[in-house]
Amino acid sequence: MSWLEAVNWNAEGLVPAIAQDASSGAVLTQAWMNREALERTAATMEAHYWSRSRGRLWRKGEASGHVQRVQEIRLDCDNDSILLLVEQIGGIACHTGRQRCFFQRLEDGNWRVVEPVLKEPKAIYGKRDQK
Amino acid sequence: MSWLEAVNWNAEGLVPAIAQDASSGAVLTQAWMNREALERTAATMEAHYWSRSRGRLWRKGEASGHVQRVQEIRLDCDNDSILLLVEQIGGIACHTGRQRCFFQRLEDGNWRVVEPVLKEPKAIYGKRDQK
Repeated sequence: MSWLEAVNWNAEGLVPAIAQDASSGAVLTQAWMNREALERTAATMEAHYWSRSRGRLWRKGEASGHVQRVQEIRLDCDNDSILLLVEQIGGIACHTGRQRCFFQRLEDGNWRVVEPVLKEPKAIYGKRDQK
Repeated sequence: MSWLEAVNWNAEGLVPAIAQDASSGAVLTQAWMNREALERTAATMEAHYWSRSRGRLWRKGEASGHVQRVQEIRLDCDNDSILLLVEQIGGIACHTGRQRCFFQRLEDGNWRVVEPVLKEPKAIYGKRDQK
């Protein structure tokens, strides 16, 4: 059985994939992978995901330049979740221009934005609205 | 709109939830939450998940004692993924008796187990096979 077949893909052929900054330890993003995304990630050691909103394979950073260089690929005990240790090029993982996507913290019953925008999305993407 | 309604629950009423060790930064587990699990997590500051295999709410550590005390609850940019910063009681997050669930690393086209069993599951659970 190949390593790709060992993964327990869900009914849509996807698994959650978490990207963690290898140097700071910050959890940057949670996206989704299909078989092709994981295969390409391993082949290129650059993170590829399946964009559910766009319905296509997506090389992280293809529009922004904020590529995730992959140092390690891990699988969990149930074979249904992937963890990538990455070097985040540009220091920005989120399409909002923040370091990472998990920038809302629950405080007194409200989600509060607790991380700054490092670069305006318009400056990252031009007129495009892509991750 | 309440903070629970801000979450983009999927068609099954779930979102992925990642638990990260607040002191070491290790990503411990990826599980699933429904609305009740997130509500109870916030109310008790102990991690609660929705067990898809058992079809019921699950307080992490209810069988093992390996409770996750929650220090922070974060939400991502798309409001569809949760990150918990936790203190992992007992130092074991995985039902296999390892520190964490992400103990398989891709090496030369194979998933290799790279983290030791710290405590045998039988010693954790007795005769029960629960997480």
